[in-house]
Amino acid sequence: MDISKIFEHGSLIPKSAIPLYNQIASALAENIKSSILPAGTKLPPERELAALLSVSRTTAINAYRQLEEQGLISTRVGSGTYVADLAPPIQPSSPTVPWSQLFTPSLNTQSSSILRELIASTSAEGIIPLAAGMPDPALYPLIHFNRLFSQLSAHLNGADLGHIPTEGYVPLRRILAARLTKKGYNVTPDNTMIVSGSQQGLYLITKVFLEPGDYVIVESPTYLGAIQMFSAANARLLSLPASGRLPLDILEDYLIRYRPKLLYIMPTFQNPNGRVIPIEERHELLKLAAKHRLVIVEDDPYGELYYGEQPPLSLKALDPYGGVIGLGTFSKMLFPGLRTGWVTAPETVINRFALEKQYIDLHSSNLSQKLLYDYLTEDLLDDHLVSVRTEYKRRRDLVASALKRYCSPHLTFTLPTGGFYFWCTLNNGILTRQLLHEAAKTGVSFVPGEAFYADASGARELRLCFVTHPEEKLLEGVKRLGKALHVLGNNKISSHTRPSVTPII
Amino acid sequence: MDISKIFEHGSLIPKSAIPLYNQIASALAENIKSSILPAGTKLPPERELAALLSVSRTTAINAYRQLEEQGLISTRVGSGTYVADLAPPIQPSSPTVPWSQLFTPSLNTQSSSILRELIASTSAEGIIPLAAGMPDPALYPLIHFNRLFSQLSAHLNGADLGHIPTEGYVPLRRILAARLTKKGYNVTPDNTMIVSGSQQGLYLITKVFLEPGDYVIVESPTYLGAIQMFSAANARLLSLPASGRLPLDILEDYLIRYRPKLLYIMPTFQNPNGRVIPIEERHELLKLAAKHRLVIVEDDPYGELYYGEQPPLSLKALDPYGGVIGLGTFSKMLFPGLRTGWVTAPETVINRFALEKQYIDLHSSNLSQKLLYDYLTEDLLDDHLVSVRTEYKRRRDLVASALKRYCSPHLTFTLPTGGFYFWCTLNNGILTRQLLHEAAKTGVSFVPGEAFYADASGARELRLCFVTHPEEKLLEGVKRLGKALHVLGNNKISSHTRPSVTPII
Repeated sequence: MDISKIFEHGSLIPKSAIPLYNQIASALAENIKSSILPAGTKLPPERELAALLSVSRTTAINAYRQLEEQGLISTRVGSGTYVADLAPPIQPSSPTVPWSQLFTPSLNTQSSSILRELIASTSAEGIIPLAAGMPDPALYPLIHFNRLFSQLSAHLNGADLGHIPTEGYVPLRRILAARLTKKGYNVTPDNTMIVSGSQQGLYLITKVFLEPGDYVIVESPTYLGAIQMFSAANARLLSLPASGRLPLDILEDYLIRYRPKLLYIMPTFQNPNGRVIPIEERHELLKLAAKHRLVIVEDDPYGELYYGEQPPLSLKALDPYGGVIGLGTFSKMLFPGLRTGWVTAPETVINRFALEKQYIDLHSSNLSQKLLYDYLTEDLLDDHLVSVRTEYKRRRDLVASALKRYCSPHLTFTLPTGGFYFWCTLNNGILTRQLLHEAAKTGVSFVPGEAFYADASGARELRLCFVTHPEEKLLEGVKRLGKALHVLGNNKISSHTRPSVTPII
Repeated sequence: MDISKIFEHGSLIPKSAIPLYNQIASALAENIKSSILPAGTKLPPERELAALLSVSRTTAINAYRQLEEQGLISTRVGSGTYVADLAPPIQPSSPTVPWSQLFTPSLNTQSSSILRELIASTSAEGIIPLAAGMPDPALYPLIHFNRLFSQLSAHLNGADLGHIPTEGYVPLRRILAARLTKKGYNVTPDNTMIVSGSQQGLYLITKVFLEPGDYVIVESPTYLGAIQMFSAANARLLSLPASGRLPLDILEDYLIRYRPKLLYIMPTFQNPNGRVIPIEERHELLKLAAKHRLVIVEDDPYGELYYGEQPPLSLKALDPYGGVIGLGTFSKMLFPGLRTGWVTAPETVINRFALEKQYIDLHSSNLSQKLLYDYLTEDLLDDHLVSVRTEYKRRRDLVASALKRYCSPHLTFTLPTGGFYFWCTLNNGILTRQLLHEAAKTGVSFVPGEAFYADASGARELRLCFVTHPEEKLLEGVKRLGKALHVLGNNKISSHTRPSVTPII
């Protein structure tokens, strides 16, 4: 190619602060790196380059010298200057480093990528996704966040966007602790740590408390992310039934027999089954836990999303022995993209979490933390909660009546009093896996029950999220589910009612 | 207290969508939780409450029933209704859970919290901090980011603030891969993963490659965060001198003798010593690495912050065998609060990193990623880099001449050609620890050399950051350092020149 084309349009600026040889070298470098000047291209001799660009010969020499130092050209004495051979492209099909042999062992459970797939599935074409537990994007309070960002950047102290403490932006910790205190929590800012989503809180808990072989009690069913996390840490899971009365006898048996490290529990609007543990059972649980010095991890993402009466006080608020670690998040109340959650725990525990978190990411996003601080300072969260509660309640009721209308008698459920989900049971011998297959055809998705069990249970259960979409889309989703159910149901029924064939004898 | 005060100012709204009993219960709950109505307070009987608030008796009954379910009040038959005893406050001095016995073992090296302290030290009163490696907040391109945020939220698709793939926001990965390709990297978006700061990249590498007892080669001195990370994973560190010619003989000896898992290296504007590995040595290093299938982790936060000629192509760009993992970040080029860095690696490795990252935080901040995407799309980064390079170069030259003027002959250094730091050596028998002590009195901070060594070296070295402050503050910092040095230097010299005492015989 004609090298002078690179320098067309007055791209060299003689009076710039950047020396001319530098400008020449940069322009050539860009063309070499992007292979516009491919390896082996012969470049004009220095004298010629100088003439071509109307610069001094020293300038041309310096430009070439710089490119040579960068490894972009090479000069062969007596032959000339050539574009150097850069690295040959990697052949992905023939890796020269045996990567997988170098990896540390990892757990590849069947469910290990379900979370990622759930996230991916929300964008699948033509499917109404009732799977992922996401608030409705149309309800995100973006107008406020936009305004807050403008205000923020107007009075932004540069240091606000530098590094902040690992435990979180101090004003946010302060206002959050005050908010939690209003909800009966006995916490100070020192007991309150900001994390990158409650997922990270769970990660820190796992890192700090669990060694391979340790026992952890989980509800059955429970949040699938927790099952994955504990399994990946090679913990052994003990299941506590999550329906009906809290089985304290089973729990005490576990405590005596296995001395478990943790109980992971969602007492309020449990994910997936919506159960709320009544106040007396909370007190009984705490009494038993105190007796055995059991550490309780209370995950509470949905506590403020109730559609009737306020739920009972949290375990963390009632905690008489200081053994409850609380997990909270703004992802369900506001939107997941904030990536901001919190952990409440005694200071000793927070300090240890901070040491671990420091390695992971130094600290969570300042931008989100500042914005949330301003949002809470303006006292906007409670108004937002009032409005989403009203809207989600409407959607819950709509989905409930649609499920009755379109999915009976093959599907039954209990009405959730808060949270995001219907936890449904399939009847008439229909299996969730069959339904998943059939529903993909009619165009609706959900989470199969198996995902929420550490064992192989859940074959006839499924979770539907009722908050993500506007009413008509939800209605259409339930209709499609009903269509899939009736295809399966009719098959079952017809096979049941098929007249028996009398063998010819 | 008079309970009617709680309901002053028309706080009950009869025609609200929220039932009256609910409103009454909520108001009482708030006052109970925040102890305005302390435990044991006798509440008015239902009939009296109804009269007081001009509501029906059913409403009063329902309000109390709700509070009882929440565990906030208790009714003693024949005696009345009382505010319940909430959890007694935790006595921090007498923890009932033996937390530290429950923790997994952790490495408590001397340096394990230096990073956190560095971050904290930047806010110490009256001290000019030349310690932390931070860009100057006054140069953050906030005007652009503010405008981009406004634009963003105007056309924001709610899904943008929902969940995104663990590997990062796809458009950002795409534009970043294109940018890196221009710099000679042979990468696609699938080879490029977004992480929460390059710190998290280092964490993922450690998680995925290192088991206790594994060998890792690090430069000596090197980035202290890397020493901490590898030590915390119980890896064994092998030191490669980071000054002068790359000691390939030592490296090969290590490779044969210890079969190390990784070489962690900063070939360009090394932190702390500023060294740039010349192009021929890069090729030689890669040749040796390819021969032994050594995995190289190339950390390159400063490559675009050069104050003279462009540095040579990165190892990742020159990599002939696909064994280099690249780490990059926007923290030094733009600002740390973005918490956004990247890893470049073969797809197999990226996939494994994503599996690990999923547990840690699902994905990095969407807000930062969207903003960065828009910033890069508008092609603003290169202009910003031109302007910070010019400014930082000026500061470097100012600090260099101030160091010569105020700190000679006790301190010597080599002029860095890029990056953020002066790496200085103390002469005349002065120790860094003494200087640190003395400098705290004169009001300036720096990082003592020891922090950058895995062994006990560095007793006479120190790192100064020359970019964070405007010129006059930098000048004052160096003057204060000089003052501290001369106090120590004079003591030393006087002790040297003290006339020897002739013993009386």
